[in-house]
Amino acid sequence: MKFQTPKGTRDFMPEEAAKLQKVLDIVRSVFEKYGFAPIFTPMFEDFGLLSAKGGLGEAVKNEIYYFKDKADRELGLRFDLTMPLVRVIASNPQIPKPFKRYAISRVWRYDQPQAMRYREFWQADVDVVGSSSIIADVECIAATCESLERLGFQDFFIRINNRKIVQSIFEKSIGMNNIREAFRSIDKLGKIGDDGVKAELEEKAIDSKTITKIMKFLKISGSNNSIIIKLGKKYGQVDGLTELEDLLKFAKKFGMAKRLKIDLSLVRGLDYYTGCVFEVELGGGVSCGGGGRYDNLVKDIGGPDIAATGISMGISRIFEVMKNNKMFESLPSNTTRVFIANVDKKLLPEAIKVSKRLRNKAKGVLCQTDLMDRNLTKQLEYADSLGVDYVIIVGQKELKEGKYVLKDMKMKLEDRLKIGEIIKKFKKSQKSMDKSKKN
Amino acid sequence: MKFQTPKGTRDFMPEEAAKLQKVLDIVRSVFEKYGFAPIFTPMFEDFGLLSAKGGLGEAVKNEIYYFKDKADRELGLRFDLTMPLVRVIASNPQIPKPFKRYAISRVWRYDQPQAMRYREFWQADVDVVGSSSIIADVECIAATCESLERLGFQDFFIRINNRKIVQSIFEKSIGMNNIREAFRSIDKLGKIGDDGVKAELEEKAIDSKTITKIMKFLKISGSNNSIIIKLGKKYGQVDGLTELEDLLKFAKKFGMAKRLKIDLSLVRGLDYYTGCVFEVELGGGVSCGGGGRYDNLVKDIGGPDIAATGISMGISRIFEVMKNNKMFESLPSNTTRVFIANVDKKLLPEAIKVSKRLRNKAKGVLCQTDLMDRNLTKQLEYADSLGVDYVIIVGQKELKEGKYVLKDMKMKLEDRLKIGEIIKKFKKSQKSMDKSKKN
Repeated sequence: MKFQTPKGTRDFMPEEAAKLQKVLDIVRSVFEKYGFAPIFTPMFEDFGLLSAKGGLGEAVKNEIYYFKDKADRELGLRFDLTMPLVRVIASNPQIPKPFKRYAISRVWRYDQPQAMRYREFWQADVDVVGSSSIIADVECIAATCESLERLGFQDFFIRINNRKIVQSIFEKSIGMNNIREAFRSIDKLGKIGDDGVKAELEEKAIDSKTITKIMKFLKISGSNNSIIIKLGKKYGQVDGLTELEDLLKFAKKFGMAKRLKIDLSLVRGLDYYTGCVFEVELGGGVSCGGGGRYDNLVKDIGGPDIAATGISMGISRIFEVMKNNKMFESLPSNTTRVFIANVDKKLLPEAIKVSKRLRNKAKGVLCQTDLMDRNLTKQLEYADSLGVDYVIIVGQKELKEGKYVLKDMKMKLEDRLKIGEIIKKFKKSQKSMDKSKKN
Repeated sequence: MKFQTPKGTRDFMPEEAAKLQKVLDIVRSVFEKYGFAPIFTPMFEDFGLLSAKGGLGEAVKNEIYYFKDKADRELGLRFDLTMPLVRVIASNPQIPKPFKRYAISRVWRYDQPQAMRYREFWQADVDVVGSSSIIADVECIAATCESLERLGFQDFFIRINNRKIVQSIFEKSIGMNNIREAFRSIDKLGKIGDDGVKAELEEKAIDSKTITKIMKFLKISGSNNSIIIKLGKKYGQVDGLTELEDLLKFAKKFGMAKRLKIDLSLVRGLDYYTGCVFEVELGGGVSCGGGGRYDNLVKDIGGPDIAATGISMGISRIFEVMKNNKMFESLPSNTTRVFIANVDKKLLPEAIKVSKRLRNKAKGVLCQTDLMDRNLTKQLEYADSLGVDYVIIVGQKELKEGKYVLKDMKMKLEDRLKIGEIIKKFKKSQKSMDKSKKN
C-alpha cells in the first residue's frame, strides 16, 4: 500500500497547519469586523448548479471532480465559493438585504498540478448580495486589503477596472462587436505584452485599424485620476466611469485608495462580471485573488434579479508566499507552548497537576507532560523537537521549595519561580504580544 | 433548476453558522490547551486506504462517496479522521513521538439521512500516536470532557471499558472463541436490553450455559471501584484490569474521574480497537462520540508497529443537542455587533468614518453601515433583522456636538456619547464578558 495523498493534494503537518490556521483566523477576524457573516455550504453540489449557463457551463465537467452518488445523482466537488452562494440566495429569496457573507474553506479544481498550485486549495470570499451601491464593492476591497495588511503584506495592490467602460468604448468608439473574444486577449496584456496581444487579435481576424484603436485604449496610463480624466476627454462620459470615480472616492474614506490601481486591460476571464472588476496582486506580480460585480448571475441561474459583488482571496497562494518570505516569523503569537518535564517518573502526577493548573488559570498557554516514561534529557529533547516556548521542570527539590525551574527555550534563560509567578510571567508576555498585535 | 443542497447535506445560514463556528472554536482552544497540534489532510483519500483491511475493509464502498478521478484513480471522500491520520503516520515514520494531533473537520458517510444525521457532518478528533501510556488515553478523555464542559454540558459522562478484559474473560472464563460475533450483540445491550442480547446470542447458536455466563458477566455493576473489585474476585487478575484501574487513577489527577463510568457491555463496533474503549454520552443517552486504543491499526495497513489512541467527538450531533436545548444563549460572547446608521445619506461618509475608527480601535467590534441608500427607519429595521447589539446614529446634530446616539438593542436603552466613550463602553462590556468566560 502506498501512503501518498491523492494527486494534486497535500497534507499540512503541525507546523504548517498551525500557520495556515493562523492565516484563516486573521482573515476571518477581519471579515467579521466588516460585518460579514459566515455561512457553511456542502463541499459538493449538484452538477446542475456547477454547470449552470450563467456560471461556467457544461464544459466545467473537465475541470472539476465530477461523480455520481449511489442513486445516480450527478454531483461535483465545488470549484469556488461563489456558485454555492448564488444557490443559497436563489433558494432563500426572503433573506434580509444586503446579505453580507463570508466563507473560508476548501475548493477543488482538476488542473494540472504545478508549483504553488494544488487541486485542493483554500479560498476566503467576501460578497455583498442585494446592494448595487459602489460602497459594497469598496467594502469587499477594504476587507481584502486589511486582511493582507494584518497578514504582514506591505506592497500589494488591487488592480481595478470596470467592464462597462471597456464594453462601451469597444462598442461605441472602437466599433467592435465580438467583444468577448477580444477580452480574452487583452486580459493577457500583463503576461504576453503588447506584441502578444496584437498577435492574438490579428489571429482573431480583427482589422489592423481596430487593433490600433484597441492598443491606444490600453495604453492609457498614469495616476488613477489622470486615467479617468484622459478617458473622459477621449471617449466622453462613458458608462461605468462614474462608478470608477465613486469607487476611488469611497476607497479614500476607508483609507484604501492608495491600494488601488486602474488597469484598463483588466477584464477577468469569467463572463459573468457586469461592472467593477478587481485583481489582488502581491509585490512581484503574484496574483492572489480577484472578483467583481456579478449583478446577473443569480438571475441567470434561475433565481431572483439581484445585484451582487465580491472578492475571493487565494489563501493557499497567500500561504505559500508568506512561507517563502518567512512572514510567519513576524506575526504576533497569542499562545505560549509549554512542556512540563519531570525529573523522575514518580513525579509525573505532580507535573500533571501543574499542567492542570496552567490550563485552568493561564489563558493561551498550551501545555503537555511526558507520555513515554522518558528521563529528563529525553524529555527535553522531545520538547525541543516540538519547538515549545518554555519547559517547566518538576523535581523533588522544586516541589519542596514550591519553586519550579522555568527554561525559556528561545532566550536560553533559566529561572526558579513559584507557579503563580510563572502564570504572571506568561500573562505578561501574552499582554505585550496582544499590544504589539494592535499596533 | 432546483436549488437544493445534495441529499443528506445542508447549509448553515449565518445565525447557525456562527453558532457552529463557536463550537468548533471552543473545542479547538481546549484541544490546543492540552498540547494537541493541528494537521490538515485532504477531504478525499485513495480508496486503497479507505478500504484497508485493518480499517473497514472493501465493504466500506457501500457506505462512502466513492469516485474516480479523470485518470481513473479510485478515490473516496473520507469517512472519518482516523484513517487519514494513520496514513500520515505510516508515511512519516520519523515524526517525533508522541505525536499528539487534533483535527476538526468534515467527513462523509453514505447513510440513510435521518433526524440529526446527515451524510456530511463535522467531527473533532484528538489522538496520541506513539505512546502506550494510559495517560495518553486519559488526556484524550480529559480534552473531550473539558470541551463539553466549556460548551456548557453538565451531565454527560464517558462510558469506558477495556477490550482486553472482555476478550480475556470470554476466552478463559466463559470459554468462547467466536468473540467477534458475540461482541456485536453485547455492544447493543443498552439498546436492545438483556432479552435482546440473549435472543441474538441464541441465534448465533451459542449454547445456553455460555449465554448465562455472558449475561452474568454483563450484569456486574456498581461504582467503578466495586466493578473492578468484583471482576478481580470473580475472574482473577485478567488482562487489561490494571489499565482500567490506572485510567481511573490518572483521570482523578486530571479532575475527570467523576465523568467515567465502567460499562462492561461497551466494546464498540470497530474491530481495530485493542485496549481501552470510550463512548461519550450526553444526558438522556445521546451518544456523541467515542474512541479507544488502536495499537495495531498503523501496522495493519502496512506502516510501522506503533501504539495509538484517540477519541472522536460528533460535533454535528453536539451542535443539534445544543441548539435544541438553547445552550448557545448562555455561551459567553466576545464580540459586539454594531450597525452605524445615518440620518441622511449625505452623512454616509461620516458613518463610514465612525466604522473605520471602531474597526481600528475597538477589538471584537463587528460593524457595518448602510449599503442601500435607506432612510433611518429602514436602516433600523435592517439592523434589527440582523440582531445587532448596538446601533450608532450619525446625524448633523450628532456631528456638531461630537456625540452620537448609541442604541442598546437588547436593553432598549439610548444614550448620547462621544466616540471615545462608546469605544470605552464596548471595551468594558467585552472585558466583563471575558471575565465571565474565565469563571
